[in-house]
Amino acid sequence: MVDMVYKDVLQTLEQGEACVVLTLIKENAKKGSRVAGKRFLSCSGTRVAMDACIHALSVTPFDQANDQVNGVGDPEVDPLFAQEAVTLVEASLRSGRVASKRVSLEGEAARLLAEPFYPPDELVILGGGHVSQALVPVAVILGYRVTVVDDRPAFAAPERFPGAAKVICDDFVRAIEGLHLQPSCAVAIITRGHRHDLRCLEALVGRQLGYLGMIGSRRRVQLIKEHLRSSGVSEEKIERVQMPIGLPIGAQTPEEIAVSIAAQLIQARRGEGGSAGITVQDMELLRTLVDSAKRGIPAVLATVVEARGSTPRKAGAKLLVFRDGQMRGTIGGGCIEAEARREALLLLDGGAAGLFRFSLDDDAAAEEGMACGGTMEVLLELVATV
Amino acid sequence: MVDMVYKDVLQTLEQGEACVVLTLIKENAKKGSRVAGKRFLSCSGTRVAMDACIHALSVTPFDQANDQVNGVGDPEVDPLFAQEAVTLVEASLRSGRVASKRVSLEGEAARLLAEPFYPPDELVILGGGHVSQALVPVAVILGYRVTVVDDRPAFAAPERFPGAAKVICDDFVRAIEGLHLQPSCAVAIITRGHRHDLRCLEALVGRQLGYLGMIGSRRRVQLIKEHLRSSGVSEEKIERVQMPIGLPIGAQTPEEIAVSIAAQLIQARRGEGGSAGITVQDMELLRTLVDSAKRGIPAVLATVVEARGSTPRKAGAKLLVFRDGQMRGTIGGGCIEAEARREALLLLDGGAAGLFRFSLDDDAAAEEGMACGGTMEVLLELVATV
Repeated sequence: MVDMVYKDVLQTLEQGEACVVLTLIKENAKKGSRVAGKRFLSCSGTRVAMDACIHALSVTPFDQANDQVNGVGDPEVDPLFAQEAVTLVEASLRSGRVASKRVSLEGEAARLLAEPFYPPDELVILGGGHVSQALVPVAVILGYRVTVVDDRPAFAAPERFPGAAKVICDDFVRAIEGLHLQPSCAVAIITRGHRHDLRCLEALVGRQLGYLGMIGSRRRVQLIKEHLRSSGVSEEKIERVQMPIGLPIGAQTPEEIAVSIAAQLIQARRGEGGSAGITVQDMELLRTLVDSAKRGIPAVLATVVEARGSTPRKAGAKLLVFRDGQMRGTIGGGCIEAEARREALLLLDGGAAGLFRFSLDDDAAAEEGMACGGTMEVLLELVATV
Repeated sequence: MVDMVYKDVLQTLEQGEACVVLTLIKENAKKGSRVAGKRFLSCSGTRVAMDACIHALSVTPFDQANDQVNGVGDPEVDPLFAQEAVTLVEASLRSGRVASKRVSLEGEAARLLAEPFYPPDELVILGGGHVSQALVPVAVILGYRVTVVDDRPAFAAPERFPGAAKVICDDFVRAIEGLHLQPSCAVAIITRGHRHDLRCLEALVGRQLGYLGMIGSRRRVQLIKEHLRSSGVSEEKIERVQMPIGLPIGAQTPEEIAVSIAAQLIQARRGEGGSAGITVQDMELLRTLVDSAKRGIPAVLATVVEARGSTPRKAGAKLLVFRDGQMRGTIGGGCIEAEARREALLLLDGGAAGLFRFSLDDDAAAEEGMACGGTMEVLLELVATV
């Protein structure tokens, strides 16, 4: 069940589309909370149609797949419940974070979780020189899907960019036109010369992008700003371009410039209105989950549902735990992770799935000297084995 | 000759010691400038003893190895010349950059270059969690020699840190004491808990280091600052610690935190009084140089001697060019590199070694639309083949 939902998630993300996973948790069940069902919901944009939501909620009754207790989610979905679900899904899509809501189901206290998934953040690097070569591996570590463009075959060689998803050899402007850039896409203009840089910038400055930066000296950047102004580009659009590209940290070598750009990409995606695509690391974790299920290897998926105070990781962070104690991903390391792992191993031995609350002020946490204070609510689910 | 000098450089760097390469160039030779000799000079600190300098200058006469013209550098070195050399070497060691000086040699105009080499920058990461795992590859890209410490065998496993030079499993404070940290060393405290973080910090806060950062929430950092104050640690020492560690760019995932730390490391090493160790990339370039020479493969080494204006790379940047046109390293990419490569290929066909001046305002540069304006002086030398 869990694995089938994430199989759909992976397929959707690979097609560049967004989606949401809905999870219903009964809170007053005898043995604490209990996962009553999990649903996949395909989305585009941050608005969700009521009927799509009702359809997702009614594919099979909640509860049925998990423990044969027939509950909500019958083909006749309570319209009030569906409306609550729609609101929750939209909130999760807007925030890019897990959203949860206490609902009442046939008199029982329950929680509905909506976890949004956006495709991996895209980074397009225009220019295939040394800075680009250093930027690709750092951007890949940060979870970006990277495309590199250069018009010289010797530089647009895939073997020069082992981590890149795509390397395009074409005229820069023609490549930009062919790429169908999404509004969340980040673009770094670092070609071999300002003439090419300027052509790229003129083709991009009017578009809605998650990030747009251009390399260049301070002097050159001033000239280019004046040129854009005189071409009638608005001050607001000019100011949105990060030029000279990269945080001003005194970077000198191509590798240092690459890190200064990477730091600025983080600032853009974590700032106001920034995107929150799934990381390459989480994609891999989900692939491992689906693959383990297919091969009949039992595992428990831990997902941070709510994090209060200064917890090391935020809602949506994931950890996969296997019976031999091996793990993938992280929900923050330290003793919270150790505790989650302990609970996961109990679950693999027949314990109860559901929500667990971990406090960083617990005795165990205090003893280890955890770096932060706060509480975390973590959903532990058994990955169904075939 | 060139390769023997850099062989000495590599050996010295691998032993963790600094050194300088002295190059004498005659400017008024018939065919433009001409390399008259190259010397290795071992150093420690930024002061150089006059007699060591005289010894280096007099090992064999300058000129002899290269073109059988006997010149300066005879066992009797002109004391005035030696004094100029000492001053130049010390200036290069202080700035961490190539220093050059016009000198007069038997009535001929000449240039003496001093190129300093410091061992790779050291980064010690205390704690072997997810942030550390993400930080190691980024720090390696930046040219750091990385040591990871954790007191748990499962976390201090070398296979978890493929790029690290050393992984130590020991109590944190004992490991710190055993490491003999240099004053230029960078240390990142990112253990699993504040108790360990604090022990590390107390062991390090009094030392002279190139960088010291500690992970933690704002709240926790305040508590720790108060604790240090009440233990009598001076405000100046407390303020020198980067805590919370990393540039404030909104980093959330371990990978993002790692990049925020890497960006701060760059800021520290490129700022006032920062260190300037050789990068892993340049170490590799020198290894390739020495190895090519050993195997009889002709190559030309290009070194930026002076960069004026906003050139993409600074003095000391290196490029190795082979007869088939293949290159290692970079002196800035674009047409300046293309021109240097052309000159290098001519040199491999019997042309003259020496200093070349490239202008980024040249016709060829303008045509390509180079990103920056300025001039670069580049030393081209044939790597002697055995």
